[in-house]
Amino acid sequence: MFQEVSKHKTGGRAGILKTRAASVKTPFFMPVATRGAVKSLEPAEVAATGAEVLLANTYHLHLAPGENTIKKLGGLHAFTGWNGPILTDSGGFQVFSLSNIRKITEEGVVFKDPASGREVLLTPEKSMQIQLALGADIIMAFDDVTGLDPGKAKVREAEAVERTHRWLLRSIAEFKKLTAKNPKSKRPLLFGIAQGGLDKKLRAKSVEFVQSTEVDGLGIGGLSVGEGTKQMHDMLKFLAPLYDPAKTRYLMGVGEPTNMRFAIQHGIDMFDCVLPTRNARHGSLWISGDKKLNLKNGQFAADKSPIDKTCDCYTCQQGYSRAFLRHLFKMTDPLAGKLASIHNLRYLQRICEQYR
Amino acid sequence: MFQEVSKHKTGGRAGILKTRAASVKTPFFMPVATRGAVKSLEPAEVAATGAEVLLANTYHLHLAPGENTIKKLGGLHAFTGWNGPILTDSGGFQVFSLSNIRKITEEGVVFKDPASGREVLLTPEKSMQIQLALGADIIMAFDDVTGLDPGKAKVREAEAVERTHRWLLRSIAEFKKLTAKNPKSKRPLLFGIAQGGLDKKLRAKSVEFVQSTEVDGLGIGGLSVGEGTKQMHDMLKFLAPLYDPAKTRYLMGVGEPTNMRFAIQHGIDMFDCVLPTRNARHGSLWISGDKKLNLKNGQFAADKSPIDKTCDCYTCQQGYSRAFLRHLFKMTDPLAGKLASIHNLRYLQRICEQYR
Repeated sequence: MFQEVSKHKTGGRAGILKTRAASVKTPFFMPVATRGAVKSLEPAEVAATGAEVLLANTYHLHLAPGENTIKKLGGLHAFTGWNGPILTDSGGFQVFSLSNIRKITEEGVVFKDPASGREVLLTPEKSMQIQLALGADIIMAFDDVTGLDPGKAKVREAEAVERTHRWLLRSIAEFKKLTAKNPKSKRPLLFGIAQGGLDKKLRAKSVEFVQSTEVDGLGIGGLSVGEGTKQMHDMLKFLAPLYDPAKTRYLMGVGEPTNMRFAIQHGIDMFDCVLPTRNARHGSLWISGDKKLNLKNGQFAADKSPIDKTCDCYTCQQGYSRAFLRHLFKMTDPLAGKLASIHNLRYLQRICEQYR
Repeated sequence: MFQEVSKHKTGGRAGILKTRAASVKTPFFMPVATRGAVKSLEPAEVAATGAEVLLANTYHLHLAPGENTIKKLGGLHAFTGWNGPILTDSGGFQVFSLSNIRKITEEGVVFKDPASGREVLLTPEKSMQIQLALGADIIMAFDDVTGLDPGKAKVREAEAVERTHRWLLRSIAEFKKLTAKNPKSKRPLLFGIAQGGLDKKLRAKSVEFVQSTEVDGLGIGGLSVGEGTKQMHDMLKFLAPLYDPAKTRYLMGVGEPTNMRFAIQHGIDMFDCVLPTRNARHGSLWISGDKKLNLKNGQFAADKSPIDKTCDCYTCQQGYSRAFLRHLFKMTDPLAGKLASIHNLRYLQRICEQYR
């Protein structure tokens, strides 16, 4: 489902990823629509930044409103009004980072729903069932994430990789069972996830294992979880020669301009990250040269210029001044976060477009 | 500056109000852009609801970012991106309702800025200076509001009316002084405000006094401040025969559909109210027949229909379902408040359009 179109002299590549919802150009960045919507933005506003694919969180949507409600309403696309491809994560990352984990077994993970207090079991099979019920176009296998808990270190990391691989095989089996009746053109894509932390041997093993299965793409999980930039870049450099040209490569959770450029130049096709929108809602914006400015600063109080004179985003083109945006931020008007989100999302899309 | 176009058999009228920014049809409803922006909405989104005139709050803008900053930035229109007429209130209402009043004298009102703690003096002259610096197209005279403090009752009410009249004369004098050099076509309009609470004698006296001055319009203040619907309607009925056809009549702070219909049928041309947008942000929406629904209710969790099938607002036309909007409300996504605000604002504009 991935077609390489051109290779960059830098080592990166441009291509086309065919999904059932649409064919989209790579490399691309997916804005995070945690609960089905990118906070404070309408689907058309997200699309206007150049985004073609959204990421939605399985974990959050499972808890509310629930995949059954969304299925009844016609799936995520009909529910949210976003017609392009949607990728759902497996829920693994959120389970590990956000909830009170009760128990991890070979079967899956039992966690406590923070809202209701009830115990919820998430397994590879359950994750496939939820993602398919949501109607995602790109589905992620359920993985065992350890990157967030470096204390458990080496042994746990090796175990987690092994378990991630076993869970991948169970994810694939369940996915095939549930999509057996779909005509091929109506089948979502399935991506596996390679783990291994900062251990190169484990990483290589994991990437090779994932690529040896029938998955359409390779997610690289467990990076951008607190390690240094140099460590992340080292790992991306190390992994670059190992990629299978036929599989799409998705660097999960990365969305900082410098890291994105480096990753694209080392063969990565896809990104997602909450950073551009979360930062934007706090007034932190990227301007040319990957510099940052914080619009809440007093120095912008009477600044008539747009966020970035060279920017082609809606917010800058519309002529909203730094002074007005700063005022909106000071007044906690959600319009500030929206207009700033548009700017940051467009900033990342422009980076991707430079490599297509 | 007001031209009557037609009279309704109900007693109301349709007309055209000429301001320096644009000529607009009456009756109309002004969305409240407290700090220069209607919360969570872009100017173009506000305009798309049919709104032609915005109300901004002198009190809030004086405190932040300050009229000098706004003037430096080219005035409210350039600052906010709203090109249509802008009405600014006098600041009187907010001073009385929001702040710690330190002292009311014949000179004006000393209040404490809740943010900085500093003491600020607002006088009729100061109010004119601020509103003209902001660049408003319709300016309100500074008034003494008592409606909020029924405990002080009769004597204070009569005093307040007298003071409001004296402050009106000072407002007019200051306004004339400051706009003396403006060519007539570039001069903002000035409206006076009639007070008098629920005392018909005082009200009649106040309306007559305001209309006897050179003001372009008559604001009716101190209603919709907690009195019953019947009392408000009684007063509007009582005042209807007293209006001067040449002056625009502005019922301040009223924006409930039933009250608006009643008021239009009794000669009112203009309205403003925070109700449609504030209610919307809490999920409370008007649907045909002036009924209300609260989108946060569980009954809408799987409801595919739009807020109101008969509604022509952007939100309903775009196909956003009650289920999705409810989900956004539950997730506290500001997009919910925005889409709901659009619906409620359009609801009130449609009422006005029916009478034009």
